[in-house]
Amino acid sequence: MVEQQNNKNEELFNEEELRQYLLDGDIERFRDIFFELHSYDQAQFYEKVGPDIRQTIYQFLSPQEMATIYETIELEDEEYEQFLKEMDTAYGAEMLSYMYTDDAVDVLNELDDEHRESYLEMMDSDIVDEINELLAYEEYTAGAIMTTEYVSVLENSTVRQAMNVLRKEAPNAETIYYVFVVDDAHRLSGVISLRDLIISDEDTLIRDIMNERVVHVKVTDDQEEVAQIMKDYNFLAIPVVDEYHEMQGIITVDDIIDVIDEEASDDYSKLAGLSDVDDKETSPIKAAKKRLPWLIMLLFLGMITATLMGQFQETLEKVALLALFIPLISGTSGNSGTQALAVAIRGIATGDIDEKSKMKMLLREVLTGLTMGIICGILVVVIIFFWKQSLEVGLLVGAAMGVSILVATIAGSFIPLLIHKLGADPAVASGPFITTLNDVTSILIYLGLATTFLGQLN
Amino acid sequence: MVEQQNNKNEELFNEEELRQYLLDGDIERFRDIFFELHSYDQAQFYEKVGPDIRQTIYQFLSPQEMATIYETIELEDEEYEQFLKEMDTAYGAEMLSYMYTDDAVDVLNELDDEHRESYLEMMDSDIVDEINELLAYEEYTAGAIMTTEYVSVLENSTVRQAMNVLRKEAPNAETIYYVFVVDDAHRLSGVISLRDLIISDEDTLIRDIMNERVVHVKVTDDQEEVAQIMKDYNFLAIPVVDEYHEMQGIITVDDIIDVIDEEASDDYSKLAGLSDVDDKETSPIKAAKKRLPWLIMLLFLGMITATLMGQFQETLEKVALLALFIPLISGTSGNSGTQALAVAIRGIATGDIDEKSKMKMLLREVLTGLTMGIICGILVVVIIFFWKQSLEVGLLVGAAMGVSILVATIAGSFIPLLIHKLGADPAVASGPFITTLNDVTSILIYLGLATTFLGQLN
Repeated sequence: MVEQQNNKNEELFNEEELRQYLLDGDIERFRDIFFELHSYDQAQFYEKVGPDIRQTIYQFLSPQEMATIYETIELEDEEYEQFLKEMDTAYGAEMLSYMYTDDAVDVLNELDDEHRESYLEMMDSDIVDEINELLAYEEYTAGAIMTTEYVSVLENSTVRQAMNVLRKEAPNAETIYYVFVVDDAHRLSGVISLRDLIISDEDTLIRDIMNERVVHVKVTDDQEEVAQIMKDYNFLAIPVVDEYHEMQGIITVDDIIDVIDEEASDDYSKLAGLSDVDDKETSPIKAAKKRLPWLIMLLFLGMITATLMGQFQETLEKVALLALFIPLISGTSGNSGTQALAVAIRGIATGDIDEKSKMKMLLREVLTGLTMGIICGILVVVIIFFWKQSLEVGLLVGAAMGVSILVATIAGSFIPLLIHKLGADPAVASGPFITTLNDVTSILIYLGLATTFLGQLN
Repeated sequence: MVEQQNNKNEELFNEEELRQYLLDGDIERFRDIFFELHSYDQAQFYEKVGPDIRQTIYQFLSPQEMATIYETIELEDEEYEQFLKEMDTAYGAEMLSYMYTDDAVDVLNELDDEHRESYLEMMDSDIVDEINELLAYEEYTAGAIMTTEYVSVLENSTVRQAMNVLRKEAPNAETIYYVFVVDDAHRLSGVISLRDLIISDEDTLIRDIMNERVVHVKVTDDQEEVAQIMKDYNFLAIPVVDEYHEMQGIITVDDIIDVIDEEASDDYSKLAGLSDVDDKETSPIKAAKKRLPWLIMLLFLGMITATLMGQFQETLEKVALLALFIPLISGTSGNSGTQALAVAIRGIATGDIDEKSKMKMLLREVLTGLTMGIICGILVVVIIFFWKQSLEVGLLVGAAMGVSILVATIAGSFIPLLIHKLGADPAVASGPFITTLNDVTSILIYLGLATTFLGQLN
């Protein structure tokens, strides 16, 4: 049997077979096969079969069983609303009650207020309180992504007692691989891993073997900071405390992977001037709707370039040769600006660039821009001299290109730093924006120089 | 004591104090404080103090203790060579022996051949064999990032026996939270989590409670695929098998986080035309050296634009107004190309776009490009009509812009798909490259149309 397995999860089970059992109403066979699957595969199947067959799934699975699926599933934001509307409200409310609080909150966050309220009304007040607490935390903070299902013990428990708590909590806790130690006031005082527990003597006091230097985060910390810490320390989970150092929850590594992925692809999309990256299911109209706002905004910004050039129309009419090099100069300066921008945004996102290293990095970019500007400038003078036999045009284009590269490099790093300083997300200074801005400045520099030195031109 | 803690790891310990103990040669106090730190903080301290003080650290810590630091530390590629040269070779070899094989291989991979050989000669032949096996796997495959330190038991062991194996292996294994079940020929046949073990009766046979549908990967699988699977399934570790289904190692979630981070920032840098993103320590000369190759290559590509425009010099001389809109058209089409490119590269990287959905996605992009082209085109006709009072120029610019956006969008998605098809990394089709390519085509379309319809222009 083992040999038949392979790593394509789709082939780990027969989708058609499962679907047939649902159509036949063969609940027993369906459940037999379905529960051999990993919840990810269950979720994939559930998502794929379509609303009609899903109705049978709701009959065949308990809300508790459906909860596991919803803890794993990754739907488009608007699909949650759509899928949940297929279910009976009582069934949905019970499912949400069984889910880990953080996952339930993620789902509830996607529903409209009225729909959300209808669930909360039908759920246990204990759970509703917990959910409301999490819903109250600001998005993208540790509080908003933490779960409240963790295992904690008191300082003066023994290893045996702790193992018993673990056994009892194992089915509900999101991770049992760390046990958090708290004092009488539920303040975080230590941590011990299951690894340490199982190799310790059963009568040892937790206090004596726990690690007192617990790296932890606050509920208000940004999720990106939390991700950085977990990545640096290779943690599977990190405790979250409030302002009184009372333990509020934990954040597990699977949520952090989502954060890292999300933030990276967020920076990425913004560098390309997208609100987010489409997937293969996005329709052309929807894709166009996502991309057009930037495109049109940049189009208007581009109009500034055209207006500016209009000021130099006389120069352009006299020396039409000048126009040939406009795309070259604006393109090259745009490219160097995008490079500087990428370095700055990534540096800010990963925390590599902080308050202290800001000036150092700006200075570095000035020198980098200068180096690149001089090299590209000289290169262009040489090329144009041999190509168009004109040292004057060569010098003009070379000078304009050198200065434009310098300016673009500085702008590419200064603008995101400035935006960050102002408290906004530096990634909004997207690549196309910087590129268009550089178009404007480079043309101004080029045609400005040309008009000034026009007398010397042939 | 607890109240004084906070989440800034730098403040969890007094760096100056530790440094003073090293200067004073106070080995006892130093070790007392140093070993209260998490290995990440130990590594940070070790990296910061500089080569002189590190010499004292090598005297104060055993190679085994140093191994833990090197399992956590994240140095620049060339720093490994530099740091290891500070150590006595025998000390270094012993440290490498104590490290998890995958981490030792990561370090050894950064050394030059001679230096690497000098270590391997001094290490135990068992460990050298294991290391050589991992070194033999191609970079970026599951084999190259897996570790060989995992816990496995035979199918017919009991839970008690399995727990005993776990206790024994706990200090060495990279994770003890999954126990892998193998048959007599060491072929992977199941998996059981520590969570399940601790809630099961001690006399139960592993065979009866293990999960037989083990999601696993092959040694030759790409690390990106592995990352995707672990992310989907929320695994803490995944087993790696060879072609005979024999278990070879495991990949743990911390390595996967590094992969996800690395691949995302790789795509990101390439979108900006960078070999990799500089950090704050990169010197201006080094930064310029990284950025110049692309910039100069694109500069030469930009020359094509200038040459092309040269062909239309006559047209430009007659109607200088035309030149005003060149940056606008090439800029907008470049922006839409970059957007399409970002979507395609990210889709390929995350596995969202596969063989089957390729055509569907290309079709989507054609329709998206068409929609955006028509909207932007009409917009431009209207603007130019009111601004320059010329319907002819408006129609010309609008038509050129519409067609350019369509072509750029198709190119932005088709080129990465083509490169991927040819077996190369689609991210090499960087944003600036696509932008420059779009410059060429958009100008060709614009001035081509202008020359053809010149008679109608005023």
